[in-house]
Amino acid sequence: MVNLTDVNAAFERICATTGVHQTAVMTCASLDVLAGASLFFKCEHLQKTGSFKARGALNAVRSLDQQTAANGVATHSSGNHGAALAWAAASRHIPAFVVVPNNAPLAKKHNIALHGAEIIECEPTLQAREATLGEVVRRTGANYIPPYDDDRVIAGQGTATLELLAQTGHLDSIVTPVGGGGLLAGSILAAGAGIRIFGAEPAMADDAFRSLATGIRVTAHTPRTIADGLQTTLGERNFAIIKTRSAGILLVSEDEIRAAMTLLWSRLKQLVEPSSAVTLAAVLRYPEHFAGQRVGLVLTGGNMTLPALGV
Amino acid sequence: MVNLTDVNAAFERICATTGVHQTAVMTCASLDVLAGASLFFKCEHLQKTGSFKARGALNAVRSLDQQTAANGVATHSSGNHGAALAWAAASRHIPAFVVVPNNAPLAKKHNIALHGAEIIECEPTLQAREATLGEVVRRTGANYIPPYDDDRVIAGQGTATLELLAQTGHLDSIVTPVGGGGLLAGSILAAGAGIRIFGAEPAMADDAFRSLATGIRVTAHTPRTIADGLQTTLGERNFAIIKTRSAGILLVSEDEIRAAMTLLWSRLKQLVEPSSAVTLAAVLRYPEHFAGQRVGLVLTGGNMTLPALGV
Repeated sequence: MVNLTDVNAAFERICATTGVHQTAVMTCASLDVLAGASLFFKCEHLQKTGSFKARGALNAVRSLDQQTAANGVATHSSGNHGAALAWAAASRHIPAFVVVPNNAPLAKKHNIALHGAEIIECEPTLQAREATLGEVVRRTGANYIPPYDDDRVIAGQGTATLELLAQTGHLDSIVTPVGGGGLLAGSILAAGAGIRIFGAEPAMADDAFRSLATGIRVTAHTPRTIADGLQTTLGERNFAIIKTRSAGILLVSEDEIRAAMTLLWSRLKQLVEPSSAVTLAAVLRYPEHFAGQRVGLVLTGGNMTLPALGV
Repeated sequence: MVNLTDVNAAFERICATTGVHQTAVMTCASLDVLAGASLFFKCEHLQKTGSFKARGALNAVRSLDQQTAANGVATHSSGNHGAALAWAAASRHIPAFVVVPNNAPLAKKHNIALHGAEIIECEPTLQAREATLGEVVRRTGANYIPPYDDDRVIAGQGTATLELLAQTGHLDSIVTPVGGGGLLAGSILAAGAGIRIFGAEPAMADDAFRSLATGIRVTAHTPRTIADGLQTTLGERNFAIIKTRSAGILLVSEDEIRAAMTLLWSRLKQLVEPSSAVTLAAVLRYPEHFAGQRVGLVLTGGNMTLPALGV
């Protein structure tokens, strides 16, 4: 199973040389007062391609040997992983093919095209995604790089937390969103045993919560949340890691996500996407886990269709 | 006349000890491509109270002797200077009174109240502002701290550019918005002779442009711009500095301001207010002044009524 050694190797592969950005860590006095804790926001919305997904994608692309890489890479993605893979492939001068559900946010599709990938649209169902991806891989010979259920991707995402800890020093807790579980699993591997790692999940997309509660991974669900990046189902490898060592999954409502996003926009002045707001929503909703602590929160992405300019 | 020595003294007074933030400088590869130049964004929207105005206000408040300070401070402001003065006064435990036009953005009024100032509303005319302020000063004995036409304020605002240059090394040009001219004048004092300092101004609020063109300060105009922070009229002290040493005033249209703001939101992921976007709008509108250069742009503030969440 993927472990800390893999996260460290990913760090050497994508962070120590020219690759992903070392993103800033922000703090905000007024949010600290609100939370009753010291919050450290890891700004992965300022990462290459606008999300932490650049880490896992670049680690996977750089892990391919020369001959295998030549055929290019392919994936299915509702947005951020697709853009990240397109960027990572372009940086190695190999082609990328991205299967995108036709209801994905326009800004995310645009971000994929911007980095030069070929976009193939499909119906927004898991079956349609898999069928379309299978066809693309057969046609092109490209290597499938899964969005989260993949050791290289999990190790790559873990570098965000490795970096956060190097920047802040000791943290008592870290909260990351959980969709497919790549970032949460990677963060668990990256953090030492003394740090509690929580997943934050929309109550309207609670498959990780239910999987942990029952011990059986939920494989089919119908999420309905504004956090469009968190509609995916927890991966198998991800679940194996999360069920052993996560401190728990914290559910938040749609209203709580919206309120937290408004705070991140108005106080931090950071234009993060809804999926990024679930962590602050969880910290504010469950003060019993965080009061008086040093808490890391990963702001995962900033790719969204812009609201109408209210001016 | 206020000069570089005053800016350096302000730096010691407000930056070298606990006071204002040293704000980050951001860069963005895709905006560099668009501009054909290397852009360095000084993030004063991440400053205390959400704008560079914290610098001038704190410098003025800390310049008062103990006995004078005890009566508190007063000003008129459409928003950011008011919040900045409220914060600076609170940090010295003295009262603040802020006269605000009744059409000021709600977010800015809220920001003033948040820092504990007493808000006094008035009609949105210069006459009403001055009359109301005069009455407040008579009633309370508070010291009037002007929003821009004041040596202490100009010197304080100049520390933003002093800091920017220390962070980036040599810049060929710096662009700041111009409203009352506090930041532009302060930046001119702070920068060496080898750096060209431009003011960027909405064409719909072009009093600085016309003042420079004719050599006579425009004292009455009726601005109509989304850049609500730039509706003020150029100050006398400010004009004296700007007319001697600025590289020019660059006018931009409302559409250019909106387009630049959209770029700052979508590419930099920074929720800046419209007044902050005039600098990028100017760099994109007048490439002949900036092509191939290292250009500093001051993002002045991030206080605005949030757009409806488009999710």
